[in-house]
Parts: sequence; structure tokens; C-alpha cells
Amino acid sequence: MSSFTLFLLLFLAAARACQNGKNILFLIADDGGFEAGVYNNTAIQSPNIDALGQMSTIFDHAYTSVSSCSPSRSAILTGLPTHQNGMYGLEHSVHHFQSFEGVHSLPMILHSAHYRTGIIGKKHVAPMDVYPFDYSKTEFDDPGMSRQFGRNITLIKELTQEFLSQCKNDSRPIFLYIGFRDPHRCGGSVGEFCEIWGSGGEHGDIPDWKPLHYDPEKVKVPFNVPDTPIARQDLANQYTSISRLDQGIGLVVKEFETAGLLNNTLIVYFSDNGIPFPAAKTNLYEPGMGEPMFVYSPEAKNRGHHSQALVSSVDLLPTALDWAGVHYPSYSLNGKHVNLTGMSLLPILDEKNPSDRDTVFASHQCHEVTMYYPMRVIHQKNYKLIYNIAGNLTYPIAGDLYGSPSNQKLLNRMKSSQSLNWYKTYNQYSYRGQWELFNLEDDPQEAHNLANSPDHADLLQSMQAVLKKWQEETNDPWLVKYTHE
Amino acid sequence: MSSFTLFLLLFLAAARACQNGKNILFLIADDGGFEAGVYNNTAIQSPNIDALGQMSTIFDHAYTSVSSCSPSRSAILTGLPTHQNGMYGLEHSVHHFQSFEGVHSLPMILHSAHYRTGIIGKKHVAPMDVYPFDYSKTEFDDPGMSRQFGRNITLIKELTQEFLSQCKNDSRPIFLYIGFRDPHRCGGSVGEFCEIWGSGGEHGDIPDWKPLHYDPEKVKVPFNVPDTPIARQDLANQYTSISRLDQGIGLVVKEFETAGLLNNTLIVYFSDNGIPFPAAKTNLYEPGMGEPMFVYSPEAKNRGHHSQALVSSVDLLPTALDWAGVHYPSYSLNGKHVNLTGMSLLPILDEKNPSDRDTVFASHQCHEVTMYYPMRVIHQKNYKLIYNIAGNLTYPIAGDLYGSPSNQKLLNRMKSSQSLNWYKTYNQYSYRGQWELFNLEDDPQEAHNLANSPDHADLLQSMQAVLKKWQEETNDPWLVKYTHE
Repeated sequence: MSSFTLFLLLFLAAARACQNGKNILFLIADDGGFEAGVYNNTAIQSPNIDALGQMSTIFDHAYTSVSSCSPSRSAILTGLPTHQNGMYGLEHSVHHFQSFEGVHSLPMILHSAHYRTGIIGKKHVAPMDVYPFDYSKTEFDDPGMSRQFGRNITLIKELTQEFLSQCKNDSRPIFLYIGFRDPHRCGGSVGEFCEIWGSGGEHGDIPDWKPLHYDPEKVKVPFNVPDTPIARQDLANQYTSISRLDQGIGLVVKEFETAGLLNNTLIVYFSDNGIPFPAAKTNLYEPGMGEPMFVYSPEAKNRGHHSQALVSSVDLLPTALDWAGVHYPSYSLNGKHVNLTGMSLLPILDEKNPSDRDTVFASHQCHEVTMYYPMRVIHQKNYKLIYNIAGNLTYPIAGDLYGSPSNQKLLNRMKSSQSLNWYKTYNQYSYRGQWELFNLEDDPQEAHNLANSPDHADLLQSMQAVLKKWQEETNDPWLVKYTHE
Repeated sequence: MSSFTLFLLLFLAAARACQNGKNILFLIADDGGFEAGVYNNTAIQSPNIDALGQMSTIFDHAYTSVSSCSPSRSAILTGLPTHQNGMYGLEHSVHHFQSFEGVHSLPMILHSAHYRTGIIGKKHVAPMDVYPFDYSKTEFDDPGMSRQFGRNITLIKELTQEFLSQCKNDSRPIFLYIGFRDPHRCGGSVGEFCEIWGSGGEHGDIPDWKPLHYDPEKVKVPFNVPDTPIARQDLANQYTSISRLDQGIGLVVKEFETAGLLNNTLIVYFSDNGIPFPAAKTNLYEPGMGEPMFVYSPEAKNRGHHSQALVSSVDLLPTALDWAGVHYPSYSLNGKHVNLTGMSLLPILDEKNPSDRDTVFASHQCHEVTMYYPMRVIHQKNYKLIYNIAGNLTYPIAGDLYGSPSNQKLLNRMKSSQSLNWYKTYNQYSYRGQWELFNLEDDPQEAHNLANSPDHADLLQSMQAVLKKWQEETNDPWLVKYTHE
């Protein structure tokens, strides 16, 4: 018997022990969007994302609770909006935001319910006591390895194997959270995509990754990206970075399949926030708030169908707890009782338009600590209302977006008074006022603000009232009378 | 021998062990101002504050590095401005700011240098790892006791005795930090002073406190408080609250005297931020940035003289380390080397105008988390320049100030279009613009902004350059090019 065969046998024996419980796998993309065949993008090749979608329920109207990395991950892992869990902005470096010490997170709750929990790749939430994982390979465990843990898909595959191999000695069901770092741009102020790293030779080697390259002429340019040669090249590089994410997802799902776990594992695919282009990431316009989402349940009957239900990232914790059969604990934060406002998606996985929910919400405070721009959003039926609490501020631009080729092109054109070839003026984009009301059916680009339209005064008022009620239910600190008035 | 005599003998024997080292005592008032005889306020009785001043060097131009509670305490205890140590706003509840994990604080450095450290009363800084004390009686140790620890001066006296009694078994010199909670208003949105609590009968009893009461007609109304009967009553209540602080200071100094420690203890008296009235607390105008400060050194020769040196709260850590003969460690935060910008005050305690320093700085981000209003300030010779980084925001009002009788009166007059009897219009106060330049000699009330005056263009530019250099030296995260422009 070769040592490889021995390993395989041991591995299968090990994995078998996880075949009885109700496992959970979260696959989180970083700044990912709708660049996938299953979302009707025919310019990109995404066979592995598509294959996972074809197994799952594909949500066409899934929204992030906040379009910024750490806050969004905190909302995914706590089921609470950023303003309720305390992670008001980015976790790292000078930004230094953290969830409240008393928050009960998904890994904490599942661990208490006798799950074995693991995280691989990007974590970006704190403090450790709120987000503990039994197995952890993240930037907190080895800062020098953070890119490797998040983008080296061969390493991610091997770490997944390592985590699954522990099933041998441990009969608990598992919760594994994988935070891919693709297709996030490479760094703070650099702004380029990371499509070269690991592509071979001097750039290092990721054995399992076969980088796909694209003709800039053939990419699909979203309406919020000005169509210029520089932006097209930027998008082509994004697509290459997505090929690493796509193949990584394929490898991880394959490991679960090999281990015989696809019959008892709930799989969620989601992205933390919008793509790193204007009007998307850090914004709560549709390109920032709308995200790809699949939920795969072995118990669902329909596969690969598109659900039109309005769903939110704060639904993912209730969904996972529902799957696990675990109750959310009763507790208070800062003297106020914590109520979940999300719902389990399991009951609606099988039907086409099964949910009677017509409203989702979002909120935002900071991305970088210097980027204060609190927003509260209600998306109700075909309308969206954005409350820019400090609406007389200039809209702040994140460092990686600011430095990106697409944005520099925009700024240069603006400075030289050239036409932007864009759907808004830069001035409109920067100065938003306190209330923005959009009819998403007539105006999917959110270019025409109806907040001051007399015809919409009643609608505005009724949506404001529902928004305020949600702020109350989620203990919103920004629901104060004496500031910003 | 009576048991009291036995106690006294044991106590004296115990204290003797602390008589050899170089002890340090910090006495921090909460929202305290210049309401003291030594600062020429003849309307108030402050015999104990005055007595301490008469032993010390009295600084007439001492400035806080930030006029907000937690940020100011973090600057006192780290020697680093709020924007450099990470405590960008209040520590408690939903505000939830904390210093960076890697910061080296005064209690941490002194502990490493074989000091025994203690804190009694208000702490309001976090995380615990950055601000550890060997002996601790604060809101973190018992939240239900936070008012007792901070305002019950009999308890403060007894805890001081307890801390000093440990000298018996411990030969280390001591650093004791006492955070009085007077004369801070009673609560978040209530806004009244706390002059009734502990005044006897149903209000509880503080045996050592003899509340002093004042005729509202006779208080001294600062220029930044509109002179109305309501405001005068508010100030009379503030004075009563100060009588508790004053008597508490007397009790603590007396304990040190009884223990024979006045010959080897450095004593600092300071207030965290401006008084809780308009244009003061949370502001960096003179009533917010200027604070009372005494430094008592047994080795200084002159006593009770007024120094005109420009000094800052970030000088207190270098002063304490100089006294202790301990070096500040060399380390980095968020990848950048940490340089202290303060200086030891010990060399200048004896002379009248001994310092050649002509500049101090201050900064501010938030008070409450919803109150984003970043400022950077340079006070150079007779000029002050305030950089309101997000100057198109409305100036936010803290909950306790908003609810205070003085402020409600202002707002009510404004709403009913009555004259404010104030030195500014409320509109001027609320909308400040990005740059404010004042000539403090000609215009001590800072009512006439010279930032747009052509005569001051050169001065503006040169002060802007020095301010920017300081931002660089203090690794200011708000020194970014791509936001707020």
C-alpha cells in the first residue's frame, strides 16, 4: 500500500465521523459581485461558482446589511447590523473597530451547541472573544501569511483537508468559514487588482490555479463603471482574480464531496460587499448593496433555480441556526435586549417566490475611520430610501478605490473638465443630501432622486416611519434627537 | 492600647515603607475648570484646591490635548494625542472606543519599572491590557459602585488608606491615580449637576462632605455661558459639586501628609476637559482646551507661583517618567514608530517664564460615537488655528450638555427668536467652516475668525505648515489626501 493510498484511507475514515451531524460551510468572497455565468454574465468563465449555484437556490435579490468589509463580516457572523453589533468600520490598523464584548456570534453559539468550528483565510472581525474558532488560519494567527491563507487556493485546499481530517478524533458536526481574499484589490492605496500574484515564475506559484485572461474589449462593463480602455483593463484584471476565487471554491466543494459530506452540509456562498468600483463598495446603491448569494441545502428539492425573494446577510445566522436546530440566546447589549431581525431562509429555498417579506434594510457608519458617512437604508418593494445622516459631508472614497485605475481616470477627466462618460456628475456623486428616494423599477441606476417630489411625499413619509421603527428595533445609537439636525 | 491607636501605629509603619521611593499622585477632576481662588475666582470657596496650588507651580496656560473625557484620560496616561493612541472617543456603552493594543501607558511603564500602581474612581479608558493597575477600584471593577468610587470622598479617603497600607508589605514606590467624578453632570441626557447626591437624608450621606451652597446672584458667569437666572442656578449647583471635589482633594493630600509622603511624592492636579457648558467641553476654544494644572514637586524651590509657560496634558507622562527616572520604551504602532511630543515639566517648575516653547497642539475626533467632528489645533504664541476637518458638518452637542438647563435655555430662546444674550449667534456656533484663526490677545473670546483675512494669509499658511508637521510626527490617520476635500 503506497503512503498516498494510506493517507486517502485514513482521510476517508476520518471524514466519515463528520457524516452524521448537520455541517455548515460558508464561502465568502471579498469584494465579489455578479461576475458569474449564473448571474447572466457571459463574458466571464466561472464554472465552479456556476456549478455550486446549480446545486443551490440562487438569490437574485440578496443584499448585504452593510457594504464594507469588517462591518459586513460582523453582520454575517452575528446576524446583527453593524450599528447593533458595534463593528462600525474596518477592524485593522488605525481604524480599529470592534464588536461589543457581549455579542453572541455564530461560531460562539455553534461551539456551545457542540460544533467544531474553523476559519480559513480572511477574518477581519474582532475582538477574539466574540469571534472564537476552534481551528483558525487567519491574519490573526500569522500576519505574514494573510495573503497566502486568503488567495493561495492550493493552501486553502490543504487547510480544508487538515480541518476535515480532525473529524477522525472528533464526532462533533462542523462549521467551516472560508474567507477568500479574491477579487479584492491588492492593497490600501495601490488600487490594482491582484491578478499577477501567484501566477507563476517570479510571482510565485499556486499549483491549482490556472489563471484565465480576458480581452478588455470583451468584458461586461457595469453601468456604474465609466467605459474607458483603462476601466476595461481594470475589469479584465478583476476577472482574472475571480478565476482564482472560482477555482478555490471548486477545490473546497470537491473536498467536501470527497469526504462524503455533501449530503449533510449546508453551503452558503456570499460576498461581503460591492465590487471595488465607484457607486459600489462602501455605497448602498444597488451595486454596493446587492450581492451574489447561493444557499445549498441537501434537503431542498429544487436545484439551481433563481429566487426573487428579498433577503439579507443578517438572514444567514438564523438560517445556519435553523439548520443546526439551535436557538439564539436571550441577552442584552448596553442595557438593551437583542432581537434578531433576520429570518431563516430554509423554508423558502424550494419555492420560486415564497417569501412575503417585502422589505430589507441596511446601514453604514465608517469604512476607514476617517470615512464617517452614516447611512440608513430601507428597500421596500420597488423603492429604496437612503437616509444620509450626515448628508452635508462630501462622500468619502476608500483608499483602494481612490487609487484604482478606474477612479483615477474619473478624477483626471473631472479635473481637466472632460466629459466623464458616466451616469452621474462627480458632484452629484459626492454631494448627496440627507434623503435619497429611488424607484428601482423605473430607475435601476438610482440616478433620479424623488425625495423632494410632491408626488412621493406620502411614500417618503411612510418609508421614513418604517425605517425609524427598524432603527428602534435594532437599538440604533444614531437614533438621537440632538445631533445632525 | 486602644484598637484605634494600634491601627494608627500599624498604618504609620506601613506607610513608612513608601517613604524612600519617588512616588507619584495624579488627581484628575471631571469636567473641572478654573473655579478656584488660585485662578482668581473670588465667588467660590476652594480652600483645599487653593492649598494644593500654594504648594505647587500653578500653570495659567495649561491645555488639554483633547476636550473629551476618555480621549483626554488616554492622552494623560499615554502621553500620546487621541488620534495617535487610538482612543478616538468615549470608551463606554455604544461609543466603545479603545486605545490600540500596542500602546505603552504610564501605569504599564511604571509597573515594569517596579512601581506599585493604583487607580481609584473614574477610569474610562480601555482596553485593560493597555491600562493595567495593580490596585483598582473603578467602574470596571464594580459598575454599580462607579458613582461611589468617584464622588463619595469618604470612601475615596478610605480606599487611599487601603492602598497606602499595602506599603507595609511592598517596598516599591507608588503611582496612585484618583479620578474624581466631580463636577461632571449627573448623567447622559439629564444634564443636571450632581450636587444633591450624598448631601444627607434621603440623598445618602458622605460623612466627610460639607456641601457649600451659593447664591446664584453671586456666581461668576464665564463669557461662554449666557447670563440668565437658569444658567446662574446651574453654575451655583456646579460650585456645590466642586465643594465635594475640593474637600476630596484635601482628604487625599492629608492622607499622603499623614503617611509622611509629601517629601517624596510628585503631585499633579488636572482636569480632563472643559466645563460642561457651551463652547467648552468637547470644544477646542479656550474654555474647552484650557484647564487648571498644578504640579507639586518636593524638590522645587518656589511654591504657589503662576507659570506662564504653554504646557499640555501630553507633558504629564514625560514629567512623571522624568521624576521616576524611567525611560520611555522604543516601539511602533500600526507600523509607525511612536515619538513622544510632550516634555517634562520638572525643569520649568521653579522659574516664572522658563520655557522657550511657544506652541501647543490639540486634536479631537468624536465624543459620543455619533458626534464625529474631527479637529486639529495649533496654539502658537497669541494665535490659535482650528482645522475643522469635516467643517461642513453641524457642530454636535453632547447629550449631557444638550439636556443641561443652560443649553435648553439657549435653544428655547433661539427657537422663539429671542435674543440669546450670548457672544455668538447659535448659527455661528453650529457652522464653523474648515479653518478658524483667532488672535487670542485681541479677541480672547475667539469671536472673530481671521482665516479669510488677507492680512493674516502668511500667518495662516505658516501655522498650517507647522500643524501638518505635527500631524505627521504623531502619525495622524486623518492626514489623508483623498477624503474631506
